[in-house]
Amino acid sequence: MRIRNKPWADEFFEENNHIILQDPFSYKGNWKEAFTDKKPLHLEIGSGKGQFVAGMAANFPEANFIGIERVKSVMVGALKKVKAAEVSNAVLVNEDAKDLRDMFSESEIDHLYLNFSDPWPKTKHAKRRLTYESFLEQYKEILKDGGKITMKTDNRGLFEYSLASFSQFGMVIEDVTLDLHELEEEKNVMTEYEEKFAEKGQPIYRCIVINIK
Amino acid sequence: MRIRNKPWADEFFEENNHIILQDPFSYKGNWKEAFTDKKPLHLEIGSGKGQFVAGMAANFPEANFIGIERVKSVMVGALKKVKAAEVSNAVLVNEDAKDLRDMFSESEIDHLYLNFSDPWPKTKHAKRRLTYESFLEQYKEILKDGGKITMKTDNRGLFEYSLASFSQFGMVIEDVTLDLHELEEEKNVMTEYEEKFAEKGQPIYRCIVINIK
Repeated sequence: MRIRNKPWADEFFEENNHIILQDPFSYKGNWKEAFTDKKPLHLEIGSGKGQFVAGMAANFPEANFIGIERVKSVMVGALKKVKAAEVSNAVLVNEDAKDLRDMFSESEIDHLYLNFSDPWPKTKHAKRRLTYESFLEQYKEILKDGGKITMKTDNRGLFEYSLASFSQFGMVIEDVTLDLHELEEEKNVMTEYEEKFAEKGQPIYRCIVINIK
Repeated sequence: MRIRNKPWADEFFEENNHIILQDPFSYKGNWKEAFTDKKPLHLEIGSGKGQFVAGMAANFPEANFIGIERVKSVMVGALKKVKAAEVSNAVLVNEDAKDLRDMFSESEIDHLYLNFSDPWPKTKHAKRRLTYESFLEQYKEILKDGGKITMKTDNRGLFEYSLASFSQFGMVIEDVTLDLHELEEEKNVMTEYEEKFAEKGQPIYRCIVINIK
């Protein structure tokens, strides 16, 4: 034990290793083991400070939630949020998920969330957008046939790009809204970013896309 | 000849029967006969006062344009616009195009335009929207494989609905823009309605969709 020399965040993560998984790759094909019950698996890519994944877990006890976030300092906030929510159906993964297929087996995921991803506005950076073809290939494989992707963003360029990208990849657009908060859906769980953005009265775009195998 | 008792519009149409076709159904499968040269066929559904079809014909001499409009009083304006444009690659059809398959044969059309169609906002009227499944069935048949539909509208609800409807029908979304006039495309030919709407600074939505047979 080298607790004395460990950064505070690492200690905090280790103390809560039932929430922040220490070896997430070991769960591949067996993610139900990370939870108390077997339920549909919902995965958020880029969980940030965790308000969404914690709120979703609290609002939808019928599903299990996994939040992936690569930035450790941000993940500290997410862990606090999930602990505060007192839910047993949310776990966190502090990894740079370069290839989700290393962590999830074929058709293991029911629903995937992309919330306010980096828009990478320059065309030369299009490959980094989380709705670029190479990412959709990963999503297609780890999602069930008929599984869904819900994407929310305030970035018009990213949204326009993503609708075309999903469709050209062979996924089916189930629903589009160009002003999510006008819908006043009771169960729209907001991210921290979304909350601040919505307060300014600017529109949030959302689409729900169906995975076709 | 019963010119004396004829309404003015009918006389005006007859005098210009090289532009407003008197028996459009007779051209089915043989639309090149309506033009001086054989070129790709572009079809606008609901041409209104004709600014779009006349402007497109002038800007794209490499294609032939057909504008359909059921309201006779509006069609008078369209005829004036096409005459004023002095183009030989645009004709008009004053019919209620209930089933386009009565007028066009399989794969006869290269490009179809839906400009500012009636949004029919109530769910119970969804069947009347020009992007409802029954209309897409017609478009799919008369359009070539790989032929395109360009849709422009200022109506958010209709646009949201249409993106999902196209995708669920099996068409592929090639391009989406949520603020067409910010693109400053040189060759965006505006409709009369679009011009007025854009002056108010409100966004125009556009999508380009690919027909898959």
